[in-house]
Amino acid sequence: MATIDVVLGVEIEGTRVSFGLVDKFGNYVLEEKIPMKAHEPPESLFLRLNKKFNDIYSSVSDKYKLLGIGVAAPTANYATGTIENSSNLNWKHVNVVELVQKYWDIPVVITNDANAAALGEARYGVAKNFKNFIQITLGTGLGSGIVVDGNIVYGTDGFAGEIGHTTVVRNGRHCGCGRQGCLETYVSTSGIIRTVSELLAMHNDESVMREIPIHEMTSKLIYKAAINGDVVANTAFETTGQMLGESLANAVAILSPEAIILSEGLALAGDLIIRPTKFHMEKNLLNLFKGKVQILASGLTTGNVAILGACALIWHELQLPKHTLRVVYAE
Amino acid sequence: MATIDVVLGVEIEGTRVSFGLVDKFGNYVLEEKIPMKAHEPPESLFLRLNKKFNDIYSSVSDKYKLLGIGVAAPTANYATGTIENSSNLNWKHVNVVELVQKYWDIPVVITNDANAAALGEARYGVAKNFKNFIQITLGTGLGSGIVVDGNIVYGTDGFAGEIGHTTVVRNGRHCGCGRQGCLETYVSTSGIIRTVSELLAMHNDESVMREIPIHEMTSKLIYKAAINGDVVANTAFETTGQMLGESLANAVAILSPEAIILSEGLALAGDLIIRPTKFHMEKNLLNLFKGKVQILASGLTTGNVAILGACALIWHELQLPKHTLRVVYAE
Repeated sequence: MATIDVVLGVEIEGTRVSFGLVDKFGNYVLEEKIPMKAHEPPESLFLRLNKKFNDIYSSVSDKYKLLGIGVAAPTANYATGTIENSSNLNWKHVNVVELVQKYWDIPVVITNDANAAALGEARYGVAKNFKNFIQITLGTGLGSGIVVDGNIVYGTDGFAGEIGHTTVVRNGRHCGCGRQGCLETYVSTSGIIRTVSELLAMHNDESVMREIPIHEMTSKLIYKAAINGDVVANTAFETTGQMLGESLANAVAILSPEAIILSEGLALAGDLIIRPTKFHMEKNLLNLFKGKVQILASGLTTGNVAILGACALIWHELQLPKHTLRVVYAE
Repeated sequence: MATIDVVLGVEIEGTRVSFGLVDKFGNYVLEEKIPMKAHEPPESLFLRLNKKFNDIYSSVSDKYKLLGIGVAAPTANYATGTIENSSNLNWKHVNVVELVQKYWDIPVVITNDANAAALGEARYGVAKNFKNFIQITLGTGLGSGIVVDGNIVYGTDGFAGEIGHTTVVRNGRHCGCGRQGCLETYVSTSGIIRTVSELLAMHNDESVMREIPIHEMTSKLIYKAAINGDVVANTAFETTGQMLGESLANAVAILSPEAIILSEGLALAGDLIIRPTKFHMEKNLLNLFKGKVQILASGLTTGNVAILGACALIWHELQLPKHTLRVVYAE
C-alpha cells in the first residue's frame, strides 16, 4: 500500500509540548500533548516526547511516511538550531535539532513561534497568495515573522523580526528585555492590561475595570467589558490599535508588504483591535502606500497556529533546492 | 581582438544626468555628464544622452562590449521600470526602461539611488562580505537600501526601504512627504540645519552659527564649525547621531543586519556623525544584538556612488538565473 507523506509539527511552550502529524494540505493525522515538568533536563523531555509519539504513531505507521520534524519555540534560532536563554522555558543553551535527532533520524528544523506562524499562514492560512507580508502574534508579548519574496527574513544570526522590541516611546514602559518603551509593552495581552491601569489612573470614567485587581485582569475581561460598552475598555483597545497602527506604518515604509496578519491573543478581539489598527496605520502611511496594505485576521484555527507553522517550516525546508537546504544533521 | 564586457551606469539627478562605462571590477572606461534642461520632455533628454554617449563611445567601441544599462534615480521603481511623481525631476509618470530601450536595444534596469548605492557597496565597496546590511544615504533626504540574504528588499511594489519616512517624533517636523516627524527631517543635510536652528532658539551658547542666515547654512558649514569647536554645531551632530542611532536600533531588531553603511552628505563628516550614531545605536539595541552590528562609512568614492551602484544593479541582473530575470524589454 502506498503511504502518505507527513511531517511532525512540535510546539514547545512554558507549560507543555504539543505535536501534530500533518500532511501537505494541513490535515491532521494525529494530535497530542505532554506536560512540561519543572527542572526536567531537555534530554528527558524529548525522550518522553518520542515515547508518547511512538505509542500513537505505531498504530498508523503503515499508512504514513514521516519525512521531517519542524519545531516552534520561543527564542528558537533557525540558523543555529538552538534555543538560547529562553526565560519562558528556563533553558540556557539547548541544541534542539541535535537532541531531536537523537530520537528521530530525519531532517529537523526549528524556528521561533512568530516565524512558524508566518509560514503556517503562507501555506495553510490567509497568506497563500502573498510573497511579502508581516505576521504579528499578539500574545503575552508581540512576536513578528517577516516574509520577503516568499522567504522568512532571518537576518545575520537568525534573530530578525523583533518588531515587538522596537522602541516606540522614549523612556516608556519597562520591558522584560531590560529596556524601555518596547512596542510589546503596549501592544500585547499584557500591554493592554497596563494601558487599562494607566487609563484608570488618568481619567474619572466609571468602569467595571475598577473592580478588578490588576493581577486578575486579562485581555479577555477587557474584551468582554468593551463589548458591553465600558468606556475604559474601549479606549484601551483604541489606544492599543493606535500604537500598533503607527508602528505598522513604519514597518510598511521599510518593507512594503502586501498584508499584515494578526493572530492569537488580542487578535481574537477581531474588529475591536483591527479597526483602530487599520485606521491609524492608514493615517500614518506614506502616500504611496495608502490603501494598498491589508490587515487581516489569521486564517488558522487558534491553538494550532504554531503546530501548523512548524509543519509548514519543515515542508518548506524539504522543498528547498539542495544547495540552500539548511536542515542540520547532528554529527 | 577580444572585447571587454562593460555596462553603462546612469545617475539621474535634478540638475544633471551623469553616466559611466564600467567593467566587472568597477573600473571606469569613460565618464561624462549632461545638464538637465527645464521643462525638457524625458524623450529628448534620453535622445541627448544617447548622442553624447555615442560621441564618446564610438572611439572605443571596438575594445568594449556594452551588455546592459543600469539607471539610478530618485523614486525610480525597480518593479515597474518607471519614475513616478518625482518632485526632484518634476516628472509625473515616465517609463524609463522603455525610453532608454528606444535608443539602446539591450537590457535596462532601474532603481532608486539608495538601492543602487547598496548594490554598489556590495559589489565594489565595504559590503563585499555581507549578505545582510542596510545602506543609508545622508543627502538632502535620508535614503535607504536594504539587503537581505544578498538581495535588495523591494517589497510588493518596489518601494520598500523608506526608513527615511518612518515616523520618529509624533507631531514632529513637517516633511516634504506631507507628514510630520519623519526621520529624514532630523537626519539628513537639511535635517541638521533645522536642528541647528532649533538649538540656537533653545540655548544661549555663543556660536558662529548665529552669523549665518538659515537659508545660507549648509551641513558643510556646520561641519567646519564643529571641527573648530563650536558648541552648537557639535551638539547638532550629537543630536543627529542620537536620532539616527535610535532608529537604527529599531531597524536592527527588525532585520538583524551584519552592518549599516553610511554614505554621502552627512556621512562625509566621518567620526563626528559615526561616533554618536554608534553610541546611541548600541545603547538602544536589544541585548542579543549588542556588539554585533558594524557601522561603516561608504567604501566608494563620493560622486560615483550612484553610477557604480547603477552598474552593480545591471551586473547583478545580468547574472540572475533566467527565470528570475526582471530585466524588462520594451515591446
